Amino acid sequence: MSQQKKISVGVLGATGSVGQKFIALLSDHPWFEITEVAASERSSGKKYKNAVNWILTSLLPKKVANMTVKDCTPNLNCQIAFSGLDSSVAGEIELSFAKAGYTVVSNSKNHRMDKDVPLLVPEINHEHLEIIKTQKFGKGCIVTNPNCSTIGLSLALKPLHDKFGLESVNVVTLQALSGAGYPGISSLDIIDNVIPFIYGEEGKVETEPLKILGEYKSGKIQDTKIRISAQCNRVAVMDGHTECVQVNLKKKATIEEIINAWENFKGIPQKRNFPTAPSKPIHYFDDQKYPQPKIHRNIDKGMAVSIGRLREDSLFDYKFVILSHNTVRGAAGGAILCAEMMVEDGYIK
Amino acid sequence: MSQQKKISVGVLGATGSVGQKFIALLSDHPWFEITEVAASERSSGKKYKNAVNWILTSLLPKKVANMTVKDCTPNLNCQIAFSGLDSSVAGEIELSFAKAGYTVVSNSKNHRMDKDVPLLVPEINHEHLEIIKTQKFGKGCIVTNPNCSTIGLSLALKPLHDKFGLESVNVVTLQALSGAGYPGISSLDIIDNVIPFIYGEEGKVETEPLKILGEYKSGKIQDTKIRISAQCNRVAVMDGHTECVQVNLKKKATIEEIINAWENFKGIPQKRNFPTAPSKPIHYFDDQKYPQPKIHRNIDKGMAVSIGRLREDSLFDYKFVILSHNTVRGAAGGAILCAEMMVEDGYIK
Amino acid sequence: MSQQKKISVGVLGATGSVGQKFIALLSDHPWFEITEVAASERSSGKKYKNAVNWILTSLLPKKVANMTVKDCTPNLNCQIAFSGLDSSVAGEIELSFAKAGYTVVSNSKNHRMDKDVPLLVPEINHEHLEIIKTQKFGKGCIVTNPNCSTIGLSLALKPLHDKFGLESVNVVTLQALSGAGYPGISSLDIIDNVIPFIYGEEGKVETEPLKILGEYKSGKIQDTKIRISAQCNRVAVMDGHTECVQVNLKKKATIEEIINAWENFKGIPQKRNFPTAPSKPIHYFDDQKYPQPKIHRNIDKGMAVSIGRLREDSLFDYKFVILSHNTVRGAAGGAILCAEMMVEDGYIK
Amino acid sequence: MSQQKKISVGVLGATGSVGQKFIALLSDHPWFEITEVAASERSSGKKYKNAVNWILTSLLPKKVANMTVKDCTPNLNCQIAFSGLDSSVAGEIELSFAKAGYTVVSNSKNHRMDKDVPLLVPEINHEHLEIIKTQKFGKGCIVTNPNCSTIGLSLALKPLHDKFGLESVNVVTLQALSGAGYPGISSLDIIDNVIPFIYGEEGKVETEPLKILGEYKSGKIQDTKIRISAQCNRVAVMDGHTECVQVNLKKKATIEEIINAWENFKGIPQKRNFPTAPSKPIHYFDDQKYPQPKIHRNIDKGMAVSIGRLREDSLFDYKFVILSHNTVRGAAGGAILCAEMMVEDGYIK
Repeated sequence: MSQQKKISVGVLGATGSVGQKFIALLSDHPWFEITEVAASERSSGKKYKNAVNWILTSLLPKKVANMTVKDCTPNLNCQIAFSGLDSSVAGEIELSFAKAGYTVVSNSKNHRMDKDVPLLVPEINHEHLEIIKTQKFGKGCIVTNPNCSTIGLSLALKPLHDKFGLESVNVVTLQALSGAGYPGISSLDIIDNVIPFIYGEEGKVETEPLKILGEYKSGKIQDTKIRISAQCNRVAVMDGHTECVQVNLKKKATIEEIINAWENFKGIPQKRNFPTAPSKPIHYFDDQKYPQPKIHRNIDKGMAVSIGRLREDSLFDYKFVILSHNTVRGAAGGAILCAEMMVEDGYIK
Repeated sequence: MSQQKKISVGVLGATGSVGQKFIALLSDHPWFEITEVAASERSSGKKYKNAVNWILTSLLPKKVANMTVKDCTPNLNCQIAFSGLDSSVAGEIELSFAKAGYTVVSNSKNHRMDKDVPLLVPEINHEHLEIIKTQKFGKGCIVTNPNCSTIGLSLALKPLHDKFGLESVNVVTLQALSGAGYPGISSLDIIDNVIPFIYGEEGKVETEPLKILGEYKSGKIQDTKIRISAQCNRVAVMDGHTECVQVNLKKKATIEEIINAWENFKGIPQKRNFPTAPSKPIHYFDDQKYPQPKIHRNIDKGMAVSIGRLREDSLFDYKFVILSHNTVRGAAGGAILCAEMMVEDGYIK
Repeated sequence: MSQQKKISVGVLGATGSVGQKFIALLSDHPWFEITEVAASERSSGKKYKNAVNWILTSLLPKKVANMTVKDCTPNLNCQIAFSGLDSSVAGEIELSFAKAGYTVVSNSKNHRMDKDVPLLVPEINHEHLEIIKTQKFGKGCIVTNPNCSTIGLSLALKPLHDKFGLESVNVVTLQALSGAGYPGISSLDIIDNVIPFIYGEEGKVETEPLKILGEYKSGKIQDTKIRISAQCNRVAVMDGHTECVQVNLKKKATIEEIINAWENFKGIPQKRNFPTAPSKPIHYFDDQKYPQPKIHRNIDKGMAVSIGRLREDSLFDYKFVILSHNTVRGAAGGAILCAEMMVEDGYIK
Repeated sequence: MSQQKKISVGVLGATGSVGQKFIALLSDHPWFEITEVAASERSSGKKYKNAVNWILTSLLPKKVANMTVKDCTPNLNCQIAFSGLDSSVAGEIELSFAKAGYTVVSNSKNHRMDKDVPLLVPEINHEHLEIIKTQKFGKGCIVTNPNCSTIGLSLALKPLHDKFGLESVNVVTLQALSGAGYPGISSLDIIDNVIPFIYGEEGKVETEPLKILGEYKSGKIQDTKIRISAQCNRVAVMDGHTECVQVNLKKKATIEEIINAWENFKGIPQKRNFPTAPSKPIHYFDDQKYPQPKIHRNIDKGMAVSIGRLREDSLFDYKFVILSHNTVRGAAGGAILCAEMMVEDGYIK
């Protein structure tokens, strides 16, 4: 993209934890410019800096600090609406924006599994964007970003599925606290503790990858056929989901072949060098203590997946550990990369 | 047991973290009395309170505080030697004590897989104690306690194996810091982090249960045939190992049948009401957020296993979560229960 | 007390974090019996076990689990009403109970500084109970328990004030998370962090000790004259407030004299051996690493204050560190001890 | 500085935690180039990447990874030797390098209080560098960096001392784990805990600022006369020391005057825009929850001090909270800024 003028974007749910991350990541974006911030009635009308309880460790960007928070109604002065809305309200609001002609790029779960809505990981399935044409919103559209646990997993699985074919995938997650939003998990519940349950999470991890890795054919996204089982745990980590993964492959593969498949994996965001794209989507580490959330979550701007400990397994073909940043690649950063993909593919002009 | 006089016991490696736990748990024991504490040369000759860096949150028992630390050589005034020795020295020292006529009950890994050494979980395999007769130590003997991750798992599997037959077991652990001894894991390595690797641990979890659940036949312990795969992680929890477990059963079983098998499971320690025995070896919780290390690790004196979240799985028959206290049931408490079993079965008089 | 029948007690705000602690500590009490649990409308009418999100690591007492939660209106079947109510509602509700003839023992701040309300620490100022006679509630009355940071400090100061006279006190607190209630502090705000501010806390620490250490004279409680300065911090500790204290004394004192004053300090609860009383209110530790919240918070049932590091100071006469359990001595346990004092002094019959 | 060629530097103690931080901060430095890494015999001869257990969350710089570790003997190919040596060996080794003609810039405590050695904070006392001329090392010299708790405090005190005169300073610290080196504090000792003691720390905080704020006169550094009292605690924070400070001033000052003094404070590093200098040495925050280690430790490259909560006090004139990054400003970053100052002042050519 070599445009002169930046594309105007608004952030829906701008005061929430995902909304704040959108703002932090968009504040110096070379293609996009924040022109609107919108939130619930409690905040609207206030200056953003007065409405928000800023929880990020990077400072609140000055440009946004003094913007007036608007309502989440579709009369915002922007072309793209990034949605970090809570799922209790996201469904309706996102529909209203799409109908009014906005390009909605959402991190909420509500429309992810809709038949005509792409569940987009730009390195994996940008051809799914064509399904937008079947949406009934005129100029507007809705595109979604997967769940924070799904996206790292899908990136790790994609090269294996392409080269060797996946039959089954078993995953146990150790998920970070920021995945629960703010205030989210009480400190009394998680210091010196593990919570072996996350509401609704296992279902998402077992189904979303099937759509993401599915084929776009005859105007439909057809789920791929892999059996996935997930067990999800919350642990005392701020950012970065760790996942212990086991796979059965259709085709025999050596450890070297698998590592090569990961290390050489590239998508269009890498080939065309998108602003938010990691230089490599997957980094493999030989040190058997790696990957670790504190050390690797920020690799490649927090947009890459780190993998380690690939080894043979007695019940599956292979097992390994993956790690990805749940609020960057797994939320706001992933959604921004989706929008960059849409610009490149001509869906946003 | 209704004896008049307590049995004298010594603690080898008494200043280490497992040794301290032995002392805390033995200090008011109705059958056993600590008469000796032994440790490395650095400590021997000192008063225990001056030699030890007491790390437990219970206070150092006064009786022991002023005892003089001895060398770990087999001229201690005691009948049982509880070993909390580091594995780098445990092998030789334990042999020397057995040869000298002591009953060695060890928490170290060195002799666990020796053919003539029982790997004892009293509720599961007390008949394995007979193999002691094949040991070549005259009056002395060695009995071992399993790894801290194995013991909770084995207790959870035993009723399933008995009633339905286990074909395969998949386990991912989230292990507590105290499992690494003291000082063990640096705070810089684990706060806000997960370490997805524990040296040597996965091998133990994959093999020890086969011996524990094995059959004692014709003077031999014959490993049971289950395929086990383990992945081990360290998390920021002080005490209590959480394990996500999946199983394939040989015989069809309903959720109710499995929960009943767990809830009704009892061993000799329960039937004869041993001092260190939990009233119930297994507690099942319906609340899907349970078990959690901070809430359940101390249930039944820290000697019981807590289980929850039993549900059907798409890749295995069932999945569930288990939790047990790694330094009580999984180390010192488990070893003391072994000694109680040996008293009851007449191996210690 | 050698009565036959237990005194009936109710817990107001029974589902909150302080209310839960009341229930845990009262469930086996030799003098008191829980006959009522009351909470807000959201909970009333439900069984307690269904209304509460039980957050303690001890299990919910079975007797209470099936009790029906009542409204916080003064028609409960009990003699004493322990109040763990939030301060936003405690003021009015406690008044209504006192007027209706109940003995209200409150952990809330609302009435602490009322002229006719004792701010009671039984070891320090039980003679303040006489002021109850000036309350205008007929048979009913209100007695309060100090703030969780004040109570440990006051106990540490009392023997010094009695023997040497206090001129000024400087205190910096490192307070535990449970002091903020539940859910209280978000995990995202405190893991790997310190929050150097607790709303309203410094004022309480600077004023409450003046009343507690005050003299009851001519029917009035007269504040003692000490200048106190407080700075309050929240740290990542579950239970147990640590305080760095500096004092100026009116009379010269040696380190030995001060330690003796602490070690020999006893109040009526010790002399008459109340059920909830610590055997010693103050424990002094020589080890300069002590006291520490994880190691010492539960000493003497969580009802004692631990002190260490007494040393001379260049700006004040002495400095030292104190530690006390904020939800036991500093809240529910302290309030129960107040009620025991009232029974002994004949205010509850 | 507008030189063509970078100045060659070596890092002593390169595999330790401070050494690693030196390497991370020097790897892209515009004036300095790492030409040597040196460590103990255990490491020397190995490639750096094989000798080090890299604990930082930034990745090991590639340039340094393959350098061969040398012995800490003064035949290194470099002009400046940055010392991150342990104090048990630093004294002798640093002397040997100075005698051999190297410019030693040290983070160790050994020579800090030597009469002829500057204890340098470039914004405060660069004129102390003249004392180097009295050192007896020919071309070589030793310059030191203060303790990690002292440096933030000294920066906060400097503008107050200049404008209003300091009479007394009371400080209670809440110090981060990285200050104890690696492995440092065991996780078992600090999760859910506070340790109210740090060996030797209080003495350093009470004396080092007197030298730093002292006057260089007639060829001597004369300590300033302030009475300082310090109490030091370790808390579960990775990086960033928080300090609760109280001051008595010689001259009356308003809150506004004090904040202005801080906000307008600048030293030569700011005026001449040194590469490692913060744009502002002191940032004042109005939000009473601030500063917090997780949010503010990295402000201005981790080289600035954050201050908040300035308010009147009943025992001193004012109290406030300060926060600074203990391994950046308080160790390696501070030492590098010292070297930059020495280049500017012509002590390194």
